[in-house]
Amino acid sequence: MSGAQRRALVLGLGLIGGSVALGLRAAGFAVTGRDVNADRLRFAIEQGLVEGAEGSGGLDLIVLCVPVDVVPALADEVLALLEANEGAVATDVAGVKAPVAEVISHPRFIGGHPMAGAELVGPEGARPDLFAGASWVLCPDGHTDPEAFARLHGIVSELGASPLALPADEHDRLVATVSHLPHLVAASLMNQAASAAADDPVLLRLAAGGFRDMTRVASGDPRIWPELLIGNRAAVLEGIEALRGRLGELAEDLRRGDRAALAKRLGEAQAARRSLPVGRAAPQELSELRVPVPDRAGVLAEVTTTASAAGVNLVDLEIAHSAEAVGGVLVLVVARADAKRLAEALAGRGYRAHAVELEA
Amino acid sequence: MSGAQRRALVLGLGLIGGSVALGLRAAGFAVTGRDVNADRLRFAIEQGLVEGAEGSGGLDLIVLCVPVDVVPALADEVLALLEANEGAVATDVAGVKAPVAEVISHPRFIGGHPMAGAELVGPEGARPDLFAGASWVLCPDGHTDPEAFARLHGIVSELGASPLALPADEHDRLVATVSHLPHLVAASLMNQAASAAADDPVLLRLAAGGFRDMTRVASGDPRIWPELLIGNRAAVLEGIEALRGRLGELAEDLRRGDRAALAKRLGEAQAARRSLPVGRAAPQELSELRVPVPDRAGVLAEVTTTASAAGVNLVDLEIAHSAEAVGGVLVLVVARADAKRLAEALAGRGYRAHAVELEA
Repeated sequence: MSGAQRRALVLGLGLIGGSVALGLRAAGFAVTGRDVNADRLRFAIEQGLVEGAEGSGGLDLIVLCVPVDVVPALADEVLALLEANEGAVATDVAGVKAPVAEVISHPRFIGGHPMAGAELVGPEGARPDLFAGASWVLCPDGHTDPEAFARLHGIVSELGASPLALPADEHDRLVATVSHLPHLVAASLMNQAASAAADDPVLLRLAAGGFRDMTRVASGDPRIWPELLIGNRAAVLEGIEALRGRLGELAEDLRRGDRAALAKRLGEAQAARRSLPVGRAAPQELSELRVPVPDRAGVLAEVTTTASAAGVNLVDLEIAHSAEAVGGVLVLVVARADAKRLAEALAGRGYRAHAVELEA
Repeated sequence: MSGAQRRALVLGLGLIGGSVALGLRAAGFAVTGRDVNADRLRFAIEQGLVEGAEGSGGLDLIVLCVPVDVVPALADEVLALLEANEGAVATDVAGVKAPVAEVISHPRFIGGHPMAGAELVGPEGARPDLFAGASWVLCPDGHTDPEAFARLHGIVSELGASPLALPADEHDRLVATVSHLPHLVAASLMNQAASAAADDPVLLRLAAGGFRDMTRVASGDPRIWPELLIGNRAAVLEGIEALRGRLGELAEDLRRGDRAALAKRLGEAQAARRSLPVGRAAPQELSELRVPVPDRAGVLAEVTTTASAAGVNLVDLEIAHSAEAVGGVLVLVVARADAKRLAEALAGRGYRAHAVELEA
């Protein structure tokens, strides 16, 4: 990368787009933006989220920050921008990735999903640190350009997020379990309580901290949800049926008065909840894994999703090319404690990784 | 009440019992306590939660702080203590009230349920302000002694809680909706995610704030839960079936791709969640309602549950007897904004309430 200022274009200036723009500016990018809503665009320029609305040339980065149902309408424009800007990488932020992959396919477009800020909508709440500490999923596929991926991975890290590579369909299956289904459950619990409270308002005075915690996500703006749910329909339906089944099993335990079975299920949940990781690790000692890779499609996706599957966070990632050889070397920076595990996981896929310990 | 120090006995010195003991000491009570677990009792005495284990005479208050399944074994002792201490009022803290009412019936025993601290168990976490701001349900019935109720109501307020009168069966129905069902749902969501994470550990890195909020209660000690659930079986089963039905309806909307129906349900949940009251009101202007009441069984329960049904918090409650007349006057202290509503609700039950505004 040269010393020239990098240039980014953000399409869609809601909470996420505005925060991406602010974060990119803080990281040194020159940022322009657009929005179909003229008031939003004016607000974004006045508040300094973006520097202006013009600029589709000389771009290094294009970020599509629109709801998933708006992505198809902008697909051609993103592809045209990529063709016009050979050095650019493009991404989006929609909460479901398979529908995006269906309409935008390009070696330098890598779908993404920052796991932050879903409760809010407008640019008024935009802040440069919205993504600090958040997981940010990137979905490379077999056609992804490794250098474009590496640049995007680095930019996501510059925004303070923790990038995580996953295939689009795996992302969608996992968010059905940890986000889409829980959202529907929170809304259902809230509606059930509201219905009971209509008959007996005192119920609301008994709704203590636990109930408030469980229904908090239901207070978010519902507008984005129908499209997300429909875009992830199969996985969400499967999740709903599985949960209905689990609740049915609990009901059966309860009907039988089976204390041991109830205690077992609740004990398992307690153990699982207590082992849920808390945020990301403190600054740590790092290792570098150098992985020679062939020059063929799918290598980048395979290596990065292997890391994700092994539970290894890629702190940084570079592509080192050799002038003499076909192929190159992937440089993966990971916590020292993770290096051996990742090397073994990669060995299982036929990659030989050489570890280099870095100064802490 | 004379100027002599009031005396309380706390049976069961776990988190709730220990906190009740500390709170009572802070309110000026001399507090003794007992526990079947000798280590716990020693800990409670050493840490000053209670002053000792002796003392079953001269009591003003007996608080039974044991799990609901242990209540029957101590019922005879509580009844004997009430007979031996004519000035005493007794209560318990179990999270389900109908099973308690079945085994302890006495004009001076009023079941109770502080809505706080359910996640923890041992006396190590005891603190005098555990109940500050919490709702504390009291369950008077047709046989409750009004003076005993008024004293207990005052003591609960002294502990910082907000007392709330409800019939035992209504309490149980409401906590099924706001506590028991949500607990089962949290555990089921957590178990479902843990099962998915066993196949794909990266799931845990996607479990962001919303998922953590929704499963937090599942991290609590599961031991108390089987008895609570079984003690409230009918209402919990009804809640599970209703929730399964709601989830099934959402699945049907989703299968049909019905955006409008999904948006409607989620929008209703959002509106309900946003109108959920936040904690208790700030110090406020108060009114006193003076309600002449006949001397017959059930009056106290009827008046206090009428207040609860009208959504009116009784800030304080006294029984003013007239030397000349049969019956007396109930003095109800409420927020000024609530006075008219309560007077009207009482009028609907045949009570004439006279309002007196108090100095703020």
